[in-house]
Amino acid sequence: MNDTFLKACRGQKTDYTPIWIMRQAGRYLPEYQKVRGNVTFLELCKTPELCVEVTLQPIDILKVDAAILFSDILIPLEAMGTPLEFHEGRGPVFPEPIKSQTDLDKLIIPDPEEHTGFVMETIKLLRKELKVPLIGFSGAPFTCATYLIEGGSSKVFWETKKMMYTAPDLFHNMMRKITDTTTLYLKAQAKAGAQALQIFDSWAGILAPRDFKTFALPYVKEIIRDLKDTGLPIIYFANNGATLLELSESSGADVLGLDWRINIGDAAQRVGDVALQGNLDPFSLLLPKNELKKRIAAILDDAKDVKGHIFNLGHGIHQFTPPEQAIAAVEYVHELSRK
Amino acid sequence: MNDTFLKACRGQKTDYTPIWIMRQAGRYLPEYQKVRGNVTFLELCKTPELCVEVTLQPIDILKVDAAILFSDILIPLEAMGTPLEFHEGRGPVFPEPIKSQTDLDKLIIPDPEEHTGFVMETIKLLRKELKVPLIGFSGAPFTCATYLIEGGSSKVFWETKKMMYTAPDLFHNMMRKITDTTTLYLKAQAKAGAQALQIFDSWAGILAPRDFKTFALPYVKEIIRDLKDTGLPIIYFANNGATLLELSESSGADVLGLDWRINIGDAAQRVGDVALQGNLDPFSLLLPKNELKKRIAAILDDAKDVKGHIFNLGHGIHQFTPPEQAIAAVEYVHELSRK
Repeated sequence: MNDTFLKACRGQKTDYTPIWIMRQAGRYLPEYQKVRGNVTFLELCKTPELCVEVTLQPIDILKVDAAILFSDILIPLEAMGTPLEFHEGRGPVFPEPIKSQTDLDKLIIPDPEEHTGFVMETIKLLRKELKVPLIGFSGAPFTCATYLIEGGSSKVFWETKKMMYTAPDLFHNMMRKITDTTTLYLKAQAKAGAQALQIFDSWAGILAPRDFKTFALPYVKEIIRDLKDTGLPIIYFANNGATLLELSESSGADVLGLDWRINIGDAAQRVGDVALQGNLDPFSLLLPKNELKKRIAAILDDAKDVKGHIFNLGHGIHQFTPPEQAIAAVEYVHELSRK
Repeated sequence: MNDTFLKACRGQKTDYTPIWIMRQAGRYLPEYQKVRGNVTFLELCKTPELCVEVTLQPIDILKVDAAILFSDILIPLEAMGTPLEFHEGRGPVFPEPIKSQTDLDKLIIPDPEEHTGFVMETIKLLRKELKVPLIGFSGAPFTCATYLIEGGSSKVFWETKKMMYTAPDLFHNMMRKITDTTTLYLKAQAKAGAQALQIFDSWAGILAPRDFKTFALPYVKEIIRDLKDTGLPIIYFANNGATLLELSESSGADVLGLDWRINIGDAAQRVGDVALQGNLDPFSLLLPKNELKKRIAAILDDAKDVKGHIFNLGHGIHQFTPPEQAIAAVEYVHELSRK
């Protein structure tokens, strides 16, 4: 069992810097495309055997130090009772966005075993196969709320902020319901065998610090507090969250994820003993190999004083990335950090 | 003549905090919609009399302390010889994106008077009418380059970064040509009568600090250095640039624009004597008036140690903003900062 990743999460010394890659099980891999070619995205998410297959692919191909459950942050939202569709090229669509308390009242706090048993089954199956730790995950409540309010992805999040600013009670009621759902969902993942949990706050970066503090952070804090009993390390990734870093640290997470916009050394100076995960620009995987190696060396050097560095990209790997570049990046991280 | 804005740009004491609003001449105003209803967006940009009319509208309606030339950052790019189209709902489109040195060689460095004389004419006409200072502007070279490379707006800027990382010579050649165009264009605006110049780096925030330093910042520095002779204050706005703040300061700009993601007090602590412009979340104009007033008071308080604060939104005003909310915001800034 390779426990380098788990040690780094806890700020312990490791022989080399562990690495995994956000969206490592994904479209850039021909092996993934082959599986995905026969089913829709949602069918894939709901078929444990296929989830296991695509989760394992990058472990073998890239030699990364952790696996992440193949699933989607929107799965527990669908389980709350709102229809979810994926349209090619457009991304996820919730055709019935939440506009009122009446809409919200129709949503349930789902029992994770009953409504998302396929996720727990995937975790159990994966644990039998894996020689690296398995990361479970969910969206953060704020990010989940944006999808329910906007009815899908958004460029400017007008509806979300309109609700925050003009109907704050409704917004907080929604956050309450999503938070309860998320806590149960992550606890169930822990029970099924997940060995670390990442909370993806993909859209936290659209908030001014004072709004993040009021509308988003308290719910993340609560989830992390309620997960302490599991004993699992918690990673909180507030995407585009450079100005939210100190607030993010106060969430109680063991590890903070960083996107590529911030120098990881600067981030380390601003936070205390928390471990850091990141933060190569995913697109710099396109660099010629010698330049890519230099870039990775620079990040490792920037991170030399970080107590627990988990190498990762600053965002999910892009679908057009040549897999051999990702393979090289993993090799370079391992080789350079052993010195 | 109300010179509060110009004084604040230079870090001088003012009786109150001046305010203007990015995209203050825009779709949220019924008066603008009326003018725009009869012409295309590009026709509007190229008709000095109409540009004057829409530039003046928010001065009268909102009582802001500065005017900004009505135009678009893409105007000088079209003058370089690449076709430009605006599609409703999709934004700007360059149907012939730059993919190679051959493509780039076809672009010219346009004479601003000859190719964009309508902009200079607008400035001259405006100066006869205005009782507040007139801001001229351009896009920053990096931001301009993204449009030419992507062929329009982009979500992830894959093509731009692909060129940066795999064809850096071509990328730098393009930046060279855009920079020369921009310098001439801004000098011509100064000559025509602009009293301050803002450089919009709308997409700088997609760059890691080390890439910003290599691929974007040197060109901004050069433009600002070459504009020193004009004596005009220069505002550099690197959108989503919280992690680029110290580098942005090194551009030599007199004023740094801030988006809403950073606390303006935190920003002030990180930079020296430079003036700061910003930074209310544009969507928080939706707050009930008492809450809006509190929010503005908080930003003014955060900015109390800033040497030269120009109040603004952290991004352009949104088209669905009720004009009366923008009017109230201007009143509150004036009233609260006089205390």
